[in-house]
Amino acid sequence: MPAQYLSFRCSLPWLLLLLQALCLSYSFFAFPGTRDVYFNLYPGFQDVNHMVVFGFGFFLLVLRRYGFSSTGFNFLLVVLGVQCSVVVEDFLYSLGVQHDVVDMRSLAKAVVSMTAVVISTGAVLGKANPLQLILMTLVELIFFYISRCINRTLLQVSEYLSLMHVHLFGAYFGLAVTSRFPEAPPGLDKSRSTPKSDLFSMLGTVFVWVFWPSFNSLLADSKEEAVLNTCLALAVSAVAAFMLSALTSKDGKFRMTHIHSAVLAGGVTVSYSAPSIQHPWIAMILGLLGSVITILGSHCLQRCFNPALKLQDTSGVHFTFGLPAVLGAVASVVLRVVERGIVQQWNDLSSLGYLAFVDIGAFCQTISTALITGLITGLILNIKLLKAVHVSKYFDDQLYWEFPHLSVGF
Amino acid sequence: MPAQYLSFRCSLPWLLLLLQALCLSYSFFAFPGTRDVYFNLYPGFQDVNHMVVFGFGFFLLVLRRYGFSSTGFNFLLVVLGVQCSVVVEDFLYSLGVQHDVVDMRSLAKAVVSMTAVVISTGAVLGKANPLQLILMTLVELIFFYISRCINRTLLQVSEYLSLMHVHLFGAYFGLAVTSRFPEAPPGLDKSRSTPKSDLFSMLGTVFVWVFWPSFNSLLADSKEEAVLNTCLALAVSAVAAFMLSALTSKDGKFRMTHIHSAVLAGGVTVSYSAPSIQHPWIAMILGLLGSVITILGSHCLQRCFNPALKLQDTSGVHFTFGLPAVLGAVASVVLRVVERGIVQQWNDLSSLGYLAFVDIGAFCQTISTALITGLITGLILNIKLLKAVHVSKYFDDQLYWEFPHLSVGF
Amino acid sequence: MPAQYLSFRCSLPWLLLLLQALCLSYSFFAFPGTRDVYFNLYPGFQDVNHMVVFGFGFFLLVLRRYGFSSTGFNFLLVVLGVQCSVVVEDFLYSLGVQHDVVDMRSLAKAVVSMTAVVISTGAVLGKANPLQLILMTLVELIFFYISRCINRTLLQVSEYLSLMHVHLFGAYFGLAVTSRFPEAPPGLDKSRSTPKSDLFSMLGTVFVWVFWPSFNSLLADSKEEAVLNTCLALAVSAVAAFMLSALTSKDGKFRMTHIHSAVLAGGVTVSYSAPSIQHPWIAMILGLLGSVITILGSHCLQRCFNPALKLQDTSGVHFTFGLPAVLGAVASVVLRVVERGIVQQWNDLSSLGYLAFVDIGAFCQTISTALITGLITGLILNIKLLKAVHVSKYFDDQLYWEFPHLSVGF
Repeated sequence: MPAQYLSFRCSLPWLLLLLQALCLSYSFFAFPGTRDVYFNLYPGFQDVNHMVVFGFGFFLLVLRRYGFSSTGFNFLLVVLGVQCSVVVEDFLYSLGVQHDVVDMRSLAKAVVSMTAVVISTGAVLGKANPLQLILMTLVELIFFYISRCINRTLLQVSEYLSLMHVHLFGAYFGLAVTSRFPEAPPGLDKSRSTPKSDLFSMLGTVFVWVFWPSFNSLLADSKEEAVLNTCLALAVSAVAAFMLSALTSKDGKFRMTHIHSAVLAGGVTVSYSAPSIQHPWIAMILGLLGSVITILGSHCLQRCFNPALKLQDTSGVHFTFGLPAVLGAVASVVLRVVERGIVQQWNDLSSLGYLAFVDIGAFCQTISTALITGLITGLILNIKLLKAVHVSKYFDDQLYWEFPHLSVGF
Repeated sequence: MPAQYLSFRCSLPWLLLLLQALCLSYSFFAFPGTRDVYFNLYPGFQDVNHMVVFGFGFFLLVLRRYGFSSTGFNFLLVVLGVQCSVVVEDFLYSLGVQHDVVDMRSLAKAVVSMTAVVISTGAVLGKANPLQLILMTLVELIFFYISRCINRTLLQVSEYLSLMHVHLFGAYFGLAVTSRFPEAPPGLDKSRSTPKSDLFSMLGTVFVWVFWPSFNSLLADSKEEAVLNTCLALAVSAVAAFMLSALTSKDGKFRMTHIHSAVLAGGVTVSYSAPSIQHPWIAMILGLLGSVITILGSHCLQRCFNPALKLQDTSGVHFTFGLPAVLGAVASVVLRVVERGIVQQWNDLSSLGYLAFVDIGAFCQTISTALITGLITGLILNIKLLKAVHVSKYFDDQLYWEFPHLSVGF
Repeated sequence: MPAQYLSFRCSLPWLLLLLQALCLSYSFFAFPGTRDVYFNLYPGFQDVNHMVVFGFGFFLLVLRRYGFSSTGFNFLLVVLGVQCSVVVEDFLYSLGVQHDVVDMRSLAKAVVSMTAVVISTGAVLGKANPLQLILMTLVELIFFYISRCINRTLLQVSEYLSLMHVHLFGAYFGLAVTSRFPEAPPGLDKSRSTPKSDLFSMLGTVFVWVFWPSFNSLLADSKEEAVLNTCLALAVSAVAAFMLSALTSKDGKFRMTHIHSAVLAGGVTVSYSAPSIQHPWIAMILGLLGSVITILGSHCLQRCFNPALKLQDTSGVHFTFGLPAVLGAVASVVLRVVERGIVQQWNDLSSLGYLAFVDIGAFCQTISTALITGLITGLILNIKLLKAVHVSKYFDDQLYWEFPHLSVGF
C-alpha cells in the first residue's frame, strides 16, 4: 500500500476547514448579538466538559499502540461536534420558528449530545480514520437531533428524557456502523492492552465516574434528586462490578475490563429516572442491575452474539452503554407507570397504558433509528473516497501521527 | 502454595454481596422518601469525592507492581465504605433518636469518614488482601463513629472537630493493624517504586493538594476562613517540603517521597483549626511546622522507631498523616486556650484549664481507641479464614488481577 | 565537574528559608486580622489553581528525562511565587496607600500573575537549576508588577487588561532569559520526547484547555461573556490546530507538538477581549487566527528566527503564548476602536486615535519591559555564584533528584 494512499493531507484539512467555515459563517449570520445566559449552569457545564473531553479521552485509551489517537481524536471530535451540534440544532430549529440564542444552555445540550458520538467512536476505535470519524460525527448528530425531535413533537417526551436517550442512540449507532467494517484478524497484537494503557484507562474511568452526577443533573429540573440518586446508583454499581468480576473470572481474580465498564453502568441505568426517583433504594437497585447486565452481557456478547454477527466492538460499548441504557429505559417506563398508578389508585388504566405505550414508543423509535441510520452510515463510510484503513493497519497510531521519537514503543 | 488457596472466588464476592444487600435493605426500611437536601454542598462534595477516589487512589500508586490494586482497591473501599458509613451512622444514631435523612450532608460526612480508612489502607498497602481490607473498612468505620460519639456526647467536642480527628484515627489505626502483619523481607524488589510510578503518585498528590481546601471547608461553619487558611498552610508546607528535602538528603538533591508526604502535611496540621484561625501567619506557621515534623519524622521513624517495633509502614502514613495530625491537635488546643484567654484577659484560669483538659482528652481518647482497636483488628485479620497473603506474594498485582497482556511489566 | 560543584545543599534550602521567612514575617506585621473575603470567587479560583499547578505541570512534561523536575519545580515555583506575589503586591501597594487585605481576590491575582513565571519557565525548561528558577521568579514577579503599575497609573488601562498581559510578558521575558543561556548541542538525546511523555503532556494540555474559560473569567467583570467567548475561541482553535497540523506536516499526519501548542492559542488570543466581545463569531475568528499564527510561527521560528538569534526555546513558548498574545493585543485594540467608533459614528476621530495610542502604548511598554528586564535577568542568572548547569547536564532529572530506583529510565 503506497504512502500516498494513506495520506490525508489533501482531504482531511479541507474537510475540517469547510466545516469550521460553515460553523463560523452560520454564527455570523444567524446568532444575534444579545444573549441571555443562564450562568448558574457554568460549574455543571465545566464538569461535563471535563468528563467528555478528558474522561472519555482517557477512558478509551485501552489499545497499546493507539494512545495518541484515542485521546487526540476524541478531543477533535468533541470540539468540532459541539460546534456542529449547536449549528445543526439552531438551523433545524429555525426552520420552524425563530433563531435560538447561543448561550450556556445550548452549549450544554451540545456537549450532552456529543456523548452519543463519543460512545459510537468507542465501537469503531482503531478501525475508522479521522475522515470517517468526522463524517460519522456529522451524520450521527443530525440523526440524533431528528430522533429527539420525533420524540418531543410526536410522542410528547420531555426534553430531559429525549436527551438521556443519548447512551442508547450512541451505542446502537456505533454497533451498526462497526458491523460494516471488516473484522480485524483475531491474533492481532495491537488490539490488546498493556498494564500501562489499562492504568491510563482507569484514570479516565474514575474521572467519568466522579463527574457522572453532574452529567445526569446538568439539564434536569430537580438537580438535587438527580445528583443524589446518581451518586447512590454509581456507588452500588461499582461495588457490584468488583463482586461480579471476581465471581465470573478464572481463579476469582478481578478483570480490569469488567471494572472499566461496570462501574459506569449504574450511571447509565439511572440516567432516565434520576430526577424523579423518590426512594434511594430504587436508585441503588437500578445501579446493581446495571452492573449485573453489563458483566453478564460482556460474557454472553463476546462469546455468542458478536461472533455470530461478525461484530467487533473494540471497547465494548454494547455492554458498557447499550445494555444498561436499555435496562434504564425499561425501568423508567415501569417506574413512571407505577408512580402514576399509585397516585390514581390504579383507576384509570387506559391512561396508564397510553403513558407506557408512548414511553416504549420513544424507546423503540430511538433504537431503530440508531440501528438503521447506523447501518447506512457504515455503508457510506466504506466507500473508496474515504480511504478506509486496511485491517493490517488497524489500531495503529503511526498511520495518523508523526513519531519523531527515537525508540517507538508505548 | 496452591492456586486454590489464594482464590477469593468463594469468599470475596459473597462478602461484597452480603454488605451490599445489607446497605440496600437498610435503605429500603429505614430511609424515608422525603429528603431535605442541602444542595449548596454539592460543589464541595464533588471536590472531596474527586480527591478521595481519584487523588488518594493515585497518591498510593508508589509500588512498581501494585498499580491496579492501589487505585482499584482504593476505589472499591471508598464506594463500599461510603454506603456502610451512611448505614452505620444512621443505625447507631437511630438507636437513640429518630432516623436521619439521607442527604448530601450525610454523604459528605461519610466521604470524610472514609478518609480514615483510605489512610489506614496506605499503611497495609500491598500486604492485605481485599477480604482483609473490606473487613478492616467495616471495623474501622464503626470504631471511628464510636470514638466520635464519645467525643461529642461525653466531651462536648463540636462535630467539625470530631470529624477532623479522621487523619489521627486513620494513621494510628493503620499503624496498629500493620504491626500485626508479618514483615516483608528487606531486599524485596517489588516494594520499590519506579520513576513512572512516582510520576503517577505525583499526579495523585497534586490532586489531593489542590482539593484539600475543599476538604477542610466542606463541613466547616465559616468556609471562607477555612479555605483561606488551608491554602496558606498548604503553600508554606509545600515550599518547606522542598527546602527540607534538599537539606536532609545526600548531595542536596530532592527526594520524591519527601515531596509526596510533606506537601500535604500543612493541610493535615491546619485541619483542626482552619475555620477559627484569625491571622494568616498562624496558618502559615502551622504549615511550616507540619512539613518540618513530617520530614524529620520520616528520617527518625524509618531509622529508629520502625525497626525497633518491627513496623513496616508501606506508604509512610505515620509521618505523612499521623505526626502532622498530632501537631495539629496540640496546636488547636493551644490556639483555643490562648484565644479564650485573651478574650477573658486571663482571669478565669480554671475554665481555661477545663477547656484544655477536654480537648486533650478528646485527642487522647481518639488516639488510644485507634491504637487498641487497630491492634485487635490486626489480630483478627490474620486468622486463617481470611487467607492472609504470604510475604513472598506481597506487593503483587498478579495475585488479585487477571493479566491477559502479553508482556507483563509496569 | 566534581559533585560538590553541583550540590545545592548549601544554597537552595537557605534561599527557600529566607524567602519563606520573609513572607511569613511580612504577613505577621502587615496583614490585619479582619478580612473581607469575596467567597464567590472560590470555585473559579480552584479551577485556575488546578490549571496552573496540575495542568501546566504536566503540560511541561515533554522531555524524556525531565519528568520529576517539570512537574516538581513548577509546583515549587507556583506555591512560592503566589506567596511572594501577594507580599510584593501588598508591599509596593503600601508604599503609596494603606495595606491591602489578604483575601481570595489577592490570592487569585497572585495565581494569575504566576502564569507569567510558569510560561517563562517553559522557555528555560531543563536549562536552569532551581536556584536560578527561584531568582527568576522573584525578579519577574516584581517587574511584572511594575509594568502593570505603569499601565494602570500612567496609561489608565483597566486592571483586567493589565493582568491579561501576563502571557505576553511571560513569553518575552522567558525568551530574553533563555537567550543568555548557552545552547544545548543539537543531537542531544535527552532533549527529545517519548510517546509516554507526550501522553502525559497531552493530559496536562487537556486540563489547561478545560480550565481556560475559568482563567479568563476569574477577574473579569462580565464573567458570562468571558466564559462563552473563551469556550468558542478554544473550540475553533482546537479544530484549526488539527487542520493545520495535517496540512503542514509530512504525509498529512498530525504532529503532537502542534496540537499541544495550538489548541491553547485560542484562549491566549481571546484573553484580552473575552469579556467585551459582543458577537460569538468574532471570538471564533480570533481563535482561528490564534491557531494559524501558532502553527505558522512554529515552522518559521524554529527554522529561521531561532537559529539566527541562537535562541533555544525548549517548550516553544514563543509560538504557544507569545505570538497569540501579540495577535490578541492587536485585535483587542482594533475591536475597542471599532466598537467606540460605531457608537460615536466615527465623529470624534482624535479621541479614537488617543484610545488606540494608549492601548498600543501599554502593549509596547509591556513587551519592551519584558525583553529588557529579561535580558538583564538572563545575564544575572549566569553569574558563577548561581552554579549554572553545564550544557552536557541539561534536561536531566538526576542532577536534582535522588533516584533510588534500580532501573532508571522514564
